[in-house]
This record gives sequence, C-alpha cells and structure tokens, in this order.
Amino acid sequence: MTVINPEEPKNVFRRKAKKWVRKTCSVEVVKKRLPIISWLPKYRSEYFIQDVIAGITVGLTAIPQGIAYAVIAGLSPEYGLYASLTSGVIYVIFGSCYNVTVGPTAILAAMTAKYVVDYSADFAILTAFLSGVFMFIMGILNLGFLVEFISMPVISGFTTAAALQIAAAQLKSFFGLSGSSGNYFAESVKNFVFNIGTIQLWETVLSSATIVMLILLKKMGEGCKRTDGFFKQMRWFISLSRNAVVVVIGMIIAYVIREMFERDTLAVIGDIGSGLPKFGLPPFSTVVGDQTYNFIDMVKVLGVQCVVIPFVAILETIAIAKAFAEGGRIDATQEMIAVGLCNIVGSFGQSMPITGSFTRTALNHVSGVKTPAGGVTKVLLLFVALTYLTSTFYYIPKASLAGLIITAMFSMIDYQMFANLWKNSIKEFMLMLKTLSFCLFYGLEYGIIAGILIEACMLLYNVARPTVEVNVQKGEKGDLMVVTLSENVSYCAAEHLRQRIMKATSLDNTHVPIIVDGANLKKLDYTAAYNLMAIIKDLDKTHQILLLNFDPEIKKLCVYMETRFESKFVYAASPQELTDIFPKDV
Amino acid sequence: MTVINPEEPKNVFRRKAKKWVRKTCSVEVVKKRLPIISWLPKYRSEYFIQDVIAGITVGLTAIPQGIAYAVIAGLSPEYGLYASLTSGVIYVIFGSCYNVTVGPTAILAAMTAKYVVDYSADFAILTAFLSGVFMFIMGILNLGFLVEFISMPVISGFTTAAALQIAAAQLKSFFGLSGSSGNYFAESVKNFVFNIGTIQLWETVLSSATIVMLILLKKMGEGCKRTDGFFKQMRWFISLSRNAVVVVIGMIIAYVIREMFERDTLAVIGDIGSGLPKFGLPPFSTVVGDQTYNFIDMVKVLGVQCVVIPFVAILETIAIAKAFAEGGRIDATQEMIAVGLCNIVGSFGQSMPITGSFTRTALNHVSGVKTPAGGVTKVLLLFVALTYLTSTFYYIPKASLAGLIITAMFSMIDYQMFANLWKNSIKEFMLMLKTLSFCLFYGLEYGIIAGILIEACMLLYNVARPTVEVNVQKGEKGDLMVVTLSENVSYCAAEHLRQRIMKATSLDNTHVPIIVDGANLKKLDYTAAYNLMAIIKDLDKTHQILLLNFDPEIKKLCVYMETRFESKFVYAASPQELTDIFPKDV
Repeated sequence: MTVINPEEPKNVFRRKAKKWVRKTCSVEVVKKRLPIISWLPKYRSEYFIQDVIAGITVGLTAIPQGIAYAVIAGLSPEYGLYASLTSGVIYVIFGSCYNVTVGPTAILAAMTAKYVVDYSADFAILTAFLSGVFMFIMGILNLGFLVEFISMPVISGFTTAAALQIAAAQLKSFFGLSGSSGNYFAESVKNFVFNIGTIQLWETVLSSATIVMLILLKKMGEGCKRTDGFFKQMRWFISLSRNAVVVVIGMIIAYVIREMFERDTLAVIGDIGSGLPKFGLPPFSTVVGDQTYNFIDMVKVLGVQCVVIPFVAILETIAIAKAFAEGGRIDATQEMIAVGLCNIVGSFGQSMPITGSFTRTALNHVSGVKTPAGGVTKVLLLFVALTYLTSTFYYIPKASLAGLIITAMFSMIDYQMFANLWKNSIKEFMLMLKTLSFCLFYGLEYGIIAGILIEACMLLYNVARPTVEVNVQKGEKGDLMVVTLSENVSYCAAEHLRQRIMKATSLDNTHVPIIVDGANLKKLDYTAAYNLMAIIKDLDKTHQILLLNFDPEIKKLCVYMETRFESKFVYAASPQELTDIFPKDV
Repeated sequence: MTVINPEEPKNVFRRKAKKWVRKTCSVEVVKKRLPIISWLPKYRSEYFIQDVIAGITVGLTAIPQGIAYAVIAGLSPEYGLYASLTSGVIYVIFGSCYNVTVGPTAILAAMTAKYVVDYSADFAILTAFLSGVFMFIMGILNLGFLVEFISMPVISGFTTAAALQIAAAQLKSFFGLSGSSGNYFAESVKNFVFNIGTIQLWETVLSSATIVMLILLKKMGEGCKRTDGFFKQMRWFISLSRNAVVVVIGMIIAYVIREMFERDTLAVIGDIGSGLPKFGLPPFSTVVGDQTYNFIDMVKVLGVQCVVIPFVAILETIAIAKAFAEGGRIDATQEMIAVGLCNIVGSFGQSMPITGSFTRTALNHVSGVKTPAGGVTKVLLLFVALTYLTSTFYYIPKASLAGLIITAMFSMIDYQMFANLWKNSIKEFMLMLKTLSFCLFYGLEYGIIAGILIEACMLLYNVARPTVEVNVQKGEKGDLMVVTLSENVSYCAAEHLRQRIMKATSLDNTHVPIIVDGANLKKLDYTAAYNLMAIIKDLDKTHQILLLNFDPEIKKLCVYMETRFESKFVYAASPQELTDIFPKDV
C-alpha cells in the first residue's frame, strides 16, 4: 500500500468552506439579494414621471397579453391578469434589472396548456409553485450555469416550435371553427383540416383585420420617439399600445353587434371572474371529475415538466436580462431568486407560471423606465382592470385575440438564424430541425430535452476526437516525426490518440525519432495518461521518442505510472532543437 | 430570405454513401469478418501440439471456473459448462484474436444472478440472446467507440464493486451458514452478520485451506516456464491448473467423508444435468410460479440490463483483446461481431451471457497458444466433462468453490490504481468511489451508468470552462492586452468567455488595444461565434480591438454575422507585430 497524505484534500475543503461562509454572510450579500435597498433611497422625483409613463405603456400591453396567454394556457382570462399582479409586486422588491418586466409568457402558457385542458387550473398554479421552488433552489445553489448547455440552435428550434404550436392552436378561433383546438401542433393542424368546413366569415374578417391593423400600427410608430413633439409622441404611444388598441376596437365591434343588433356573430371570451385573486395555499391536492389527486399524484401528472418549465423560465429571464443589461453585467443568481420568489408567492394568489417577458421588457425599455418602481404603475393598472373592467372584457372577441396571438408568434421565429445556420453550419441547422420536429411531434418539453441531449452527445463526440497533428519535419541533422496534441486529450479520446499515433508510425518504415509535443495540453486524466504511457512503452521498443513541453503536473502523473520514462520528458523552444539529442546511428 | 445553396451537403452525402458501399462489399471484408479463412490454410503441424497443450490448460480452468460462475449466477453448474461449449466453437470461426478465450465471467454472472434467483434460468439465456443481438448490431454499426466513454476510474470502481459483491455472496458457502446469500452486496453482508451464529467448522476449514492452497500453488509456479526442464515444466503446469487441482482435492475429501464415513459434513453442489445442452430457440416466453411471461414481459423484467450487460461484455472483451494483441492493432468491430454471435448461437444451446475471460485468456497466452484452434481442445475437454464427469462433479464441495471464487475476486481489485488516483487526481479518485458506492448500494448496472454519466457531466463542465489567458504585454510602441483562446470554445463556454473578457477589460482603465488570439481555435459553433461577435461589438465602443489568426472557416461564420467587422480579422506571427496598426492617439 502506498503512503497516503490526507492533508491536501482536507485543506482544500476547509478553505472552500471558509470562503463560502465569508461569501454568504455579509452586508454586500443582503444588498445583492434585496436590490430595493440600493435603489429606493436614491429615488429621485424626476424618475417618477418616467416610471409612471413606462408603467402605463407596459400595463396597457400586459392586460391584453395576459388575457391572450391565459387563453393559450386554456385558463379563464383573469388568470393572466393575476399572474402579472403578484409577480409585479415581488419583482419590484427582488428584481435586479430595472428594465425587466415579469409575467405570463406565451411559451410557458403553451407548456401548461395540456394539464389545464386535461385536468384543471389547479395544475397551472401548482406548476408555478414548483417552478418557483426549483428556480429559487437553483439560484441559491448557483446552478444557473446549467442553462448555458442550451445552445442557440436548440433554443431557436424550441421557440419556433412553440410559436407554431401556439399559432396552430389559434386557427380554430381565427376562422371561428367548431370542434376542439388540440393540445399540440399536429393535433391542432389535424383538427383545423377536419373542421375547415365550419369556417365563419366575420370571425375570419375580424381576425385578419386585427393582423393588418397590428402591422399598420407598428409601421405608424416607426421613426417616432418618446422625446419627439406631441403628435409624434402620440403616434409613438399608440403604436406601442397597439395590442390594447386592437383589442378595444374588437371589443367595441362585438359590443355593438351583440347589444345593438342582438346577434352573436362573433364569439367573445365571456364571463371573467371579477376582483382580486383568492389568496391561500397553492393547490397541493385537487379534484378532477370524481378523482382526487394528492400532491404526489399531481407531481406525477406533471412529470418532466416540473423541471423543464423552470428551466425554460430561467432561460427566458436570463436571456432578457442579458439583452437589456446595457453592457453591464447581470446577476443571474439574483434573477433566478427573484423570478423564483415571484412564482412561489404568485402561486399563493392563483398565478400561472411566470418569467421575464421579452415584449413587455422591450416596451419598458423604450418607454424610458428608470427604476423597478415602474412595475408599481403596471400593478395598479392591473388592479383597476380586475376590479372595474372585467365586465367590459366580456366582449373581447376571440378572433381579435387569435389575430393578436398569431401576429406575436410570427415575430418569435428567427428566420435570420435559419439562413445563417444553413449557410455556415449544416450540422447545427440539422440540430435545430431535430429539436423543432421533436417539439412539434412529441411536445415542447421532450423536444428541448432531446435537443440538449443530442447536442451534448455531439459535443462529447467532438471531445473524443481531438485534433492530433502528425508531420515529418525534414532537418539538416535528420528527420523528425512531430506529433502535436493541439487539443486536450480526455479519457474518451485516449483510444483515438493511440490509433492516430500507431497509424502514423506504422506507415513510417525509417524509424525516425518521434517527438510528442504536449505544450497545448492543459489537463490529462488518468485514462488518457495511462494510454499515452502505454503508447510510449510500445513505441520505445522500435523508435527513439521524446515528450516535449508537457505541463509539470501532467508529467508528474505520467512519471508516477512509468518511472523509467522520466528522462523522456524534455523542454525546448522547438522540436528542431532536439535533433542533437538523438544519436545518429539508430 | 437568403439564397440557399443545396449542393454542398448533398455532395457530402453522396461521397459518404459511395465510400460506405466500397468499404462493405469486398473480399477484404469477407476475410476480416471470417478470420478462419485467413489462418486455417496457413496452419502448420508444429502449431498443433502447442494449441493442444494450451487447450488442455485452459480447459482444466474453464471447467472449475464455469461451475463457479454458474454458482455465482445462481444457476445449476452445468450451465457454466454449456456457456463455454458453444461459444468456444463459434469463436474459433469468427474470433480475430487467437489469444482470447470466451466463456462465462464472474461479472456477467453476478449481473445475471438476481433474475435467475428471483425468476428462472430462462432469464439468463434470454439475456445472452439479447446481449448477443445488441453486440452484433453495435459491431455492424461501428458503435464500438461508445465504450471509450467509460474511463478507467469508472471501470475500476465497477469491477471492485463486482468483486466485493461476488465475494460477499460467497460468505454463506465459505462459512457454511444457513439462510440465503443475498442478491447484492449490502444484503449479503447483512445476511452474513445475521447468520454468523450458524458457522460450520469443517466448511470454514476447507474453504480457508483452498485459499491457502491456491496461493501456495501460484507461488510454486513462479520462475518456471513452459520451455523449462520436465520438473519445472510440471510445476508450471500444476500451478496453472491450480483451480482444477484444488477442486479435485476438495472433491476427493468430500467423497471420502460421504461415501466412507457416511456423513454429510460438507455441503456439495449435488446433482448436475448430464450430457449436452438441449438445442432449440432461446426462451422467448417462460413460466415462473403460476405466471406466464411473454417476450415483452421478460424484457421489461430485465430492463436496463439489456443494454448494460452487452456494454460490459464489449468492454471486457475489447480490454482483453487489447491487452493480448501484442502491439498489433485489434479489430474491435470484429471482436464485437464474434462475441455477439457467440452469445446469439450460445443462447440456442442454453448458454448464459459470455464474453472474453481475462484469466483464461492470460492462461492461453502463457501456455503458448498459436491459433484460435486451441479453443477446439478446450471444447472437446468440456464435452468429455459434460458427458462422463457430471456424476463426479456431484462431490464438489461448495466451500471449495467459495474459496476459489473469493481468491479470484481479490485479484480483480486494482489496488495500484487506487493509490495512484489518490496521489495524483483526487477528482478521479472520488469518481471511482462514487461509482463503487452506487454499484454496491443500487446494483452494478445502475452504478456503471451513474459513473459514466457523472464523468460525462464533469467532462462537459470542463468543456464549458476552457482556459482563456488574458495578459497585458508591455511593448516599446505601447501596451497590448492579449486574450488567448487556448482551448476550443463551445456553445456552453460562450458565456464563460464573455465573462472572462469583460472582467479583464473592466479592470483596465487605460483602454489599451485588445488582441484576441484565436490561433488555437479549431472549431467555433454558432452560439460561441455569436457571443464572440457580441463581445467584440461591446468592446468596439470603448477599445481598439483586433482578432488575430482566426481559422478562415471561423472567420467566415463570424463575418457573416457582423459584416462590418471583417477588417478586424488580421494575420500575423505575433501580437507585437500588430502594435503599428493601432494609431497612437486613443
């Protein structure tokens, strides 16, 4: 048995523990974890008006979007407003990025939909709670880096699939068809084809008109800024609030047709629960039909979604925070904690899962928000809407919402990236297509998991096949075969390295001296080191061999395995310098 | 929409398809796939005697080991002989490595045990069939490289756990205890502790004596060679056949006690099915108790084992072929096909799962085998044993087998590697411990999967944190900040790269020009390229920045994203050469 020195690892642990304690218990940390402590005392009166304006613009979008996303999730519309309400308050306290607005998003809504449709709304609220807990823990444990393992092609395939699925589900309302809309893309398309005969003229006209209006209103605002003159400012404001504008117009039309002409030509969203959400524990058990589901049953129903939804939520919020951090660094940990808490607290107030919203954050930004206090105005507006406007919302036509949702979905697809990948990286293009197809045919949650796993496997395969350059250098004092290990060699690349070197040396009959250049190796694990030494042992019988510029740590490991090869490790500026070392007569 | 050029990928596919056809259909391939065609016509008479000697030595070990491994698997002893019989014949035809002997192994037996004990022997035979099919397909599809993702620390943890589990299961027979022996390590140890009171003196004496004898017999052969004089040659032969010797001695003792003194002091293995195995279809359905299991049910019972057992079998056989290839290259594909066929055909003759056996292959080698024909003698010996000796085997004492098995298990543990890992790589030592504990407490199959996954995650994490060197070079014409990307940057490292560069530049207030040296980058995926260009875009506002020696392919991708940065890509021998390019007045 070899003598063991237990000092080393122990010391490492102690040092790490000390560092961790010092890191977690300090005033700095409290400030970091409660950003409101930093910004509130510095609040200036001139911020106020800007925060209010931004809050109103965002609120005017949050209301129609909230209703639309509740519809996507298969929930009654008020749930979309509940979701922005509680989370808005919590984010003001814990949010680290003043531009970011949190609330329901189309993707999270789409991922929740099938549980709401097949079971009940309680599943959406429990999902919010579980996602919140998961995100909070991920934040505390500093595991945010995990989202870095989702590459842009995978994200792009996933969001495109989500957009297609959401748009497909709206085809029913868009054309006023009978039948159900379907839980996933293929089903929605199938139902659309089957029910195409029940198409309604006026629904189709209204939804198409909504899309045209949205495009025109968007164009109207182009070239206008918040800081322009009054008319331009109005154009800018109306353009930004276009979601609210088209819904209000649709609402007026539906009202006129229903109340004046007493016809129900247009389907409307109908009764909405009025007032604030009921506060209480999230639904840890629920009854669907005549079956009771306890907590464990509910978690089993949700399955892999319990992990995928918070993961997607983190992905969305960090991407948004990064995009609007304006060059500053973002605190991913704090974002996860904040959005996690928004979900946890939200689930006590009937909230569906929420995260950072891209459109509303962008809106907040262009509206010139100054501090997270902008969120307060938004919350007040939602409060008013829930208290006084729910009877008005009764008249929102489903066709208007369908037009609104479909328009939003088109902007979620990144056509530029498709073209770019196709031109420059067919492999990644295929990866995107694979993720997309998996998402469309097996569901969003399995699609993103498949995409991540496929790419991780591709990455591992690449790691297992590092570049090993072999070339024979002609020199005045004789030839040299130089084997350059240009990339790290891991355990899974050990066999590849062996084959590369063996092949190169078996082709050469002249037995020129071999130099293995390891200057680029940063690490070498046991398996790779063992294999390398086995190769050296084999080659040593037939060739002269030297190991050039290996890292001292790596050398130590190799020499420990084969002490007699210590003298083979040499250091020099270039392989040519070593020519003298080899005796001529071999 | 960008113009798309579909020529490129199509051509690649066509070229690959052509190459594949050319590769698979040729005389070379037939020779490769049927190695017997190559060696049989060249067979020389002087090989014959050496092949026969080697076959006898191996056969004399294959019989006691076969019986022992059948006992480990919970099967009746004749199954261990069946397993060496059919596979021996098939390997003579398809085997590519003449040293290798196939047959049952302790690890495969241990992994099959719980299905045999809990269900029936049919599950062992079906496992052989399924493993064979899996290995054959893996061979055909060239997927052998997958075993490269199992590193030596994981293998070491796994084999150590297997050895401990097998040894623990033998404690019952070693001490002659009552009760059951247990399906896995923890259970066996628990049962041992509970039943320690039922210890039998003479069983313990015999099993301990067996171990002592094995050690002495091994020592006896040291320093002797096959080519020495008669006495040394005998010592060498007896030492190599020590497994058979101790079993025969135990058998004689048990016979004397039973038949002469009419006492059953020693438990013996008892009745053994005589004659050749029954040939027929593998059991695609079976009855256990009063329940019928069809093929699907049986596969469900086996679960993850259907994949893990063939994987372990491939691992064992390739490791052995590599160790005894004598510097020559091994054909892993052919080994997988051969061992796969051995299992498939074997399962038609009641064989348990088989693979290359380390001890018997080593024995074959030192006995001086010349061609795969050595296997024929072994098969004949097994045939004789099955036909005439099964009534003799009745008297093999369980205690002798326990001593034999436990001795073999001690040599399976690689103490040297433990010490080596502990001294040089604590991380890999911990990985080995984790694999070991998982194997001991959750079962061998889950343990090895856990080990592989943990290590793959560690590898991915390493890939996500590549070395990025940042240093400020003082020059005559001014300072330069040089950011060297010494390792590949993958999508998961994109964010790390961003943070490293942003941190370095934020510490520097002098706004020195920045040079990003990409000479070591071999590949850059879309996500990493996008992030790199985003960083350049950010830094471009405050710093002068140049990208040095990037691969033209990578440059193309980056420039496609941000055309205006094309001029920033430069090529030079060293960063210092670029000092002149930067104007002085920034």
